[in-house]
Amino acid sequence: MKVGIIGATGYGGAELLRILQSHPAFTIAAIYSSSQQGKDITAHYPHLSHLSMTLDEIHPEAIAKQTDIVFLGVPSGISAEIAPSLLKAGCTVIDLSGDFRLKNIEQYEKWYNKKPAPKEWVDQAVYAMPEINRSAIKQDTKFISNPGCYPTATLLGLAPVVQNKLAKEGSIIIDAKSGVSGAGQTASFGTIYSELNENFKIYKVNQHQHIPEMEQMLSTWGYEAPITFSTHLVPMTRGIMSTIYVSLASSVDQAKIEQLYMEFYKDEPFIRIRNNNQFPATKEVFGSNYCDIGFLLDERTGRLTIVSVIDNLMKGAAGQAVQNANILCGLDETAGLQLSPVYP
Amino acid sequence: MKVGIIGATGYGGAELLRILQSHPAFTIAAIYSSSQQGKDITAHYPHLSHLSMTLDEIHPEAIAKQTDIVFLGVPSGISAEIAPSLLKAGCTVIDLSGDFRLKNIEQYEKWYNKKPAPKEWVDQAVYAMPEINRSAIKQDTKFISNPGCYPTATLLGLAPVVQNKLAKEGSIIIDAKSGVSGAGQTASFGTIYSELNENFKIYKVNQHQHIPEMEQMLSTWGYEAPITFSTHLVPMTRGIMSTIYVSLASSVDQAKIEQLYMEFYKDEPFIRIRNNNQFPATKEVFGSNYCDIGFLLDERTGRLTIVSVIDNLMKGAAGQAVQNANILCGLDETAGLQLSPVYP
Amino acid sequence: MKVGIIGATGYGGAELLRILQSHPAFTIAAIYSSSQQGKDITAHYPHLSHLSMTLDEIHPEAIAKQTDIVFLGVPSGISAEIAPSLLKAGCTVIDLSGDFRLKNIEQYEKWYNKKPAPKEWVDQAVYAMPEINRSAIKQDTKFISNPGCYPTATLLGLAPVVQNKLAKEGSIIIDAKSGVSGAGQTASFGTIYSELNENFKIYKVNQHQHIPEMEQMLSTWGYEAPITFSTHLVPMTRGIMSTIYVSLASSVDQAKIEQLYMEFYKDEPFIRIRNNNQFPATKEVFGSNYCDIGFLLDERTGRLTIVSVIDNLMKGAAGQAVQNANILCGLDETAGLQLSPVYP
Amino acid sequence: MKVGIIGATGYGGAELLRILQSHPAFTIAAIYSSSQQGKDITAHYPHLSHLSMTLDEIHPEAIAKQTDIVFLGVPSGISAEIAPSLLKAGCTVIDLSGDFRLKNIEQYEKWYNKKPAPKEWVDQAVYAMPEINRSAIKQDTKFISNPGCYPTATLLGLAPVVQNKLAKEGSIIIDAKSGVSGAGQTASFGTIYSELNENFKIYKVNQHQHIPEMEQMLSTWGYEAPITFSTHLVPMTRGIMSTIYVSLASSVDQAKIEQLYMEFYKDEPFIRIRNNNQFPATKEVFGSNYCDIGFLLDERTGRLTIVSVIDNLMKGAAGQAVQNANILCGLDETAGLQLSPVYP
Repeated sequence: MKVGIIGATGYGGAELLRILQSHPAFTIAAIYSSSQQGKDITAHYPHLSHLSMTLDEIHPEAIAKQTDIVFLGVPSGISAEIAPSLLKAGCTVIDLSGDFRLKNIEQYEKWYNKKPAPKEWVDQAVYAMPEINRSAIKQDTKFISNPGCYPTATLLGLAPVVQNKLAKEGSIIIDAKSGVSGAGQTASFGTIYSELNENFKIYKVNQHQHIPEMEQMLSTWGYEAPITFSTHLVPMTRGIMSTIYVSLASSVDQAKIEQLYMEFYKDEPFIRIRNNNQFPATKEVFGSNYCDIGFLLDERTGRLTIVSVIDNLMKGAAGQAVQNANILCGLDETAGLQLSPVYP
Repeated sequence: MKVGIIGATGYGGAELLRILQSHPAFTIAAIYSSSQQGKDITAHYPHLSHLSMTLDEIHPEAIAKQTDIVFLGVPSGISAEIAPSLLKAGCTVIDLSGDFRLKNIEQYEKWYNKKPAPKEWVDQAVYAMPEINRSAIKQDTKFISNPGCYPTATLLGLAPVVQNKLAKEGSIIIDAKSGVSGAGQTASFGTIYSELNENFKIYKVNQHQHIPEMEQMLSTWGYEAPITFSTHLVPMTRGIMSTIYVSLASSVDQAKIEQLYMEFYKDEPFIRIRNNNQFPATKEVFGSNYCDIGFLLDERTGRLTIVSVIDNLMKGAAGQAVQNANILCGLDETAGLQLSPVYP
Repeated sequence: MKVGIIGATGYGGAELLRILQSHPAFTIAAIYSSSQQGKDITAHYPHLSHLSMTLDEIHPEAIAKQTDIVFLGVPSGISAEIAPSLLKAGCTVIDLSGDFRLKNIEQYEKWYNKKPAPKEWVDQAVYAMPEINRSAIKQDTKFISNPGCYPTATLLGLAPVVQNKLAKEGSIIIDAKSGVSGAGQTASFGTIYSELNENFKIYKVNQHQHIPEMEQMLSTWGYEAPITFSTHLVPMTRGIMSTIYVSLASSVDQAKIEQLYMEFYKDEPFIRIRNNNQFPATKEVFGSNYCDIGFLLDERTGRLTIVSVIDNLMKGAAGQAVQNANILCGLDETAGLQLSPVYP
Repeated sequence: MKVGIIGATGYGGAELLRILQSHPAFTIAAIYSSSQQGKDITAHYPHLSHLSMTLDEIHPEAIAKQTDIVFLGVPSGISAEIAPSLLKAGCTVIDLSGDFRLKNIEQYEKWYNKKPAPKEWVDQAVYAMPEINRSAIKQDTKFISNPGCYPTATLLGLAPVVQNKLAKEGSIIIDAKSGVSGAGQTASFGTIYSELNENFKIYKVNQHQHIPEMEQMLSTWGYEAPITFSTHLVPMTRGIMSTIYVSLASSVDQAKIEQLYMEFYKDEPFIRIRNNNQFPATKEVFGSNYCDIGFLLDERTGRLTIVSVIDNLMKGAAGQAVQNANILCGLDETAGLQLSPVYP
């Protein structure tokens, strides 16, 4: 299978290149950029200097001919413009942006503060988080909307509890933390090293655009209340931790909850449940496609604390995108993704 | 005034040395250590090589003669043994450990998993957080128990809301994050650089010994429910952020809450309230005695998010200890503490 | 004495504000900015929110009236334009840029690749590194050029050896390392957190504009050969280490060299010599005006390794500038600078 | 082929596990530990919790039966004791320690300050750095001594110049920098996070045990003078940079030197030469087996600056060990090692 990457110079693009160059079934046919076309990727990314690939211009028809699947790794707002023309030209598209995740385009407009993509294309996009809705990804699916990083960590952490109706309505609070690479390569006063090193910041309190994405999924599970969600910037490059607080709707104990998680994810190759009251740390998934989950019930308060960690560039972006591509192509879901975390 | 430091080689001791060496009214008369007596402090701390002070052995009678106030910067469990003998010898003691903070010694035993200090000495200790209970510190007070780092950040963040009965019973959740220096100098697999760098960890979920310390104070304000409290380790050296979630008991708006905080702390030299929906970052208090507080009401959920940041070694330990010493001596409370944050 | 700061929003400006707000003899009369005039400094720097100072426009005549000394903390290239008009208006100026350090303006043009300042003003500027040429700073000096960060660390490390004719001609190699704050607040792909964290880079190999500044001083000491100089970026915010290699011109031993350094700097309050073959680390001077120096003679090669560390924003910029201001005003040279390093 | 790892709980062991678990020809038959036998590896390393392997005791005869090749990842001083018994039992051993690198055992004793391994076993060990002496590794080789991390980076950087007699005798100075993982998991005051974060330290100036290892190789190339070598600790986990200074013995220009490097390494899959006066950064090889090299001739001084970077745990340890194992087994040298650097 021939794959292409649009926006290869971004961090998501770099991660796709890392995975795909040693993927057993995919060959990188071409890479595309709207700002650096004609340059070699190694000019931007010397860490890839064992490769030598020229960045091509973005021509939908050419891309349709050159690729079986194209990964779209451009910022939200840009995808909305590019994806429809790719789809019209016949490409199969896996979009990593937020532009096609919200079925309600008014919600998109409100939370992203951008013009939404046309409703017809939004309707066609399959929001694909394999562990949650694998069956929605058909072999004739032409357009996949890859989930956001925070929603991936958070929903995977919440699914066993919420789907089993254990979460008391209105009680979900998510205190999320991310490494800085989630901000991409935007250079601003707020992203320079000296401002972020030896610093811990909170941002977008209850205003993050991933809130409606999570609520959209929670709603399908019968949890309709708004969530409380805040995000923090950790002085590290990669990694997301979602610390989730839920009041339990019925009386269960820690052992029962452990059993629930073990059962729920028993066949999932990328979910690793910590047992014995252990919690995962972000470094334990660094560079890998795993989502590690731990939890502890506090008998004093009846509240469950769930901790879910991912590598935001892998399971939170490029890794999950390749996982979706594998499903799309009928491959083993773990093809090219059996990368052990890099530790320490 | 002559002051002494017991446990000067710890990080709290180092911070006391930094503050006290340029304090306008205090002179460091002597420093003490149980493990490195006879050595010069610069052998352990080359950053202090402009000083030259020998570490003395801990003899309560000698300390009583040499000092007007002695800061006790030894680990919890050790203070319980040392403080009584110092007090009996006539010393005025400011204890930075957790050993005398909990009036209920059964609670101490349960949460610290150590033998508590004798009840009579615990009763004598004045728990002193100036912004909260300045009047408890009398000029004839001989024994001060300095608050914990997490409780300082958290209680200062919560006081205006809880004292004004705005917190719905049972709704307080505290998601706290700390730099690594809070762990002191303990060398173990878990504290080495390679394990903590580029890593974000959760620890002591609902089991931290600072929980009863906060509940003890909240209870005096009429909030009796247990709190949910988890702590995380941030890959940085200094700084604590408490992200606090509270459901409001009555209907107020953001402006009203801002007014409440401004009013509550209007005369406090070390509290800086962020207005206009801004939040503080930990680096904005690095190396200083400030506690910076921001907050935002989420209209969708009726929940208030409060963010309180301190430097754990300053306002969370040595800085607050000197602030208490200033009050004890009738000095200006800011004496020696007008240090601007070191930024960047 | 009333002092002003032009370019107060830069990192050098922030550090001047930190020092000067608690200086015993200087009062910050005004702060100036060419890009953010009219704003409060706390909008840019919330860590200073205990202050409240409006940034004024830069009017030389007004500045002359408002200040006894003005610190000029703007980038190289800008100082060349601003300083002359300030001097003409009667200001006493301490310039932190590189624009007036090189007496040979052709050298400036070559290494800075910028238009040099007019020769007459360059001639008037006194290059002031107190430990090296304190006597050049007269009480009627109106214009001081503050040394560069790398030259400060390096020349203080080399002075005892080179002035004593112990350095073999042509043998000096300087391998320098700096924290990222030296790059200021320039936001670019190269300065964002994700590019610099967990990374160690070399830059400007033999092309750094500080080379002619060091050679100019070495030449006055009789060392005429060009130096080899490379600079590296360390994933930390503050601190410079110069590791210096020199072949010795005559036969001396380690004890003799130690004696030489001790003697050379015996009355210097900001120089701390490590004895007993110890070397300083950058954190041991963090936030302070100290320059710590260690050295070791390798008998196998006859080469001396000298290590000199400073905080680039303090002794390498703002700290030394205040030290020079103190001398200018006949104050104790350490006034306002007796800040202990912040450790850990 | 079945492989085993002795000392699997060390960082080198962790890295071997990461590589070998997805190696196309090797299967991890067993892992061994002298201190944690009987435990599952995931108890020590939760990042490996997708594996489940019990740590076995070290019995040479059993190991000989269970494995075709065994990697010995124990500290220097321990290998000297274990390796001979493994070899006697018939194992094929790749030793990652320093115990069998120096042919002159007096040198070992002097620089390591430990009892050397028996001379007969030292003689049998093949010091194997493929790019330098691939032909020494025969298919019947039973005992390989894997090179040190600093020597790997440094010798690969120097080989083209020294083998071509371009290095002036006595002129080589190596200023090396390493991430902290090189220190392994030793917990001490010097390796805890708070001491190393935001700090840059020099250590073992001209006393590092890797000096004789490099001199031993340089000597075979005709360079007999002692080298100057210092090592620094960078606040990051992985990565080594060797900045190397050499005075050129004859007159060549930059283009000629570039040609020399390109030619020298033209068939090497793991060496990436930076052209056009570019230099590599450590992050550009993070997690990979590459060694990236850049260089620049300074016309002013006639000195060449060479920069060589590796990931100390990969090309500097586990990666090179697997590369050697591949050669030993007649496999493609890159088998299992085609891992792209993890960036950012």
